[in-house]
Amino acid sequence: MAEAIRIIGIDPGLRRTGYGVIETAGNSLKFITSGTIRSDDRLSLAARLSTLYDGLSEIIHSYMPEEAAVEQTFVNKDATATLKLGQARGIALLAPAQAGLPVAEYAPNSIKKAVIGVGHGEKQQIHMMVKVLMPRANFDSSDAADALAIAICHAHNRNSLENRLKALA
Amino acid sequence: MAEAIRIIGIDPGLRRTGYGVIETAGNSLKFITSGTIRSDDRLSLAARLSTLYDGLSEIIHSYMPEEAAVEQTFVNKDATATLKLGQARGIALLAPAQAGLPVAEYAPNSIKKAVIGVGHGEKQQIHMMVKVLMPRANFDSSDAADALAIAICHAHNRNSLENRLKALA
Repeated sequence: MAEAIRIIGIDPGLRRTGYGVIETAGNSLKFITSGTIRSDDRLSLAARLSTLYDGLSEIIHSYMPEEAAVEQTFVNKDATATLKLGQARGIALLAPAQAGLPVAEYAPNSIKKAVIGVGHGEKQQIHMMVKVLMPRANFDSSDAADALAIAICHAHNRNSLENRLKALA
Repeated sequence: MAEAIRIIGIDPGLRRTGYGVIETAGNSLKFITSGTIRSDDRLSLAARLSTLYDGLSEIIHSYMPEEAAVEQTFVNKDATATLKLGQARGIALLAPAQAGLPVAEYAPNSIKKAVIGVGHGEKQQIHMMVKVLMPRANFDSSDAADALAIAICHAHNRNSLENRLKALA
């Protein structure tokens, strides 16, 4: 019986940051929670980043995940948008690191591959596969569904790493 | 006699984040401290951002500034560099916000104008003027000198705002 590990996946964004917490043991996946942290665009940038940080820190303290995974950001042609996303992404990496969690990063293609089997696909296909892989999963936004997909990607990668290490032992 | 206000200026960067703490009362400026927080590029991005956050938080707790000012980032043509800078900048805005400080942002041109009187100029000219305005100032890097210039810019702006409010009263 493999030991259960709890993982938080984070899909960063200044306006909306999605999170999804799952548990994995061997090849099993279990949905724990998911949600969206929204920042008020009438507030200052510093206050908005604080909202994201406080929200993520609260989720981490409540659900006690042991590992974190964050999507590697798609580098946009629009420099202003890239900078905004970078700022939010800094917070998404910092919050679990400050809580002592190891933080893995995955490219969008790896996440798609882990969830739908190929490195390309529509958003809807990913959301559908999240439901297939974890029938009890629910999500209040596209960002929360993406965050669950990131957590699933990390579960697959850490399991295959564990299996490779066992084969070597 | 104007009340003294302590300000921290921050020049964000993933590799090196400069900080400078000054005190201002009316038109006077006093150097308190400055320095550079360096992150180890062999560490993970999350760990590097944590180093910056811990370093800034420690400075804020030690020197107790009441207001913070951060440079508005120059949006680069290189998207990868912009993303990196954005991540570091997110931390530079978050650390003072988490400590309860109001955080002002200034464009590079405003900083140059506040320090050297015009909206353009060489780095060296800014560093020289920081020394002219605060003869006791010392800095261990160009980033620390820039951070002091950001703090001076905020001192000028908040003083002129205070004067305008007094004139209205």
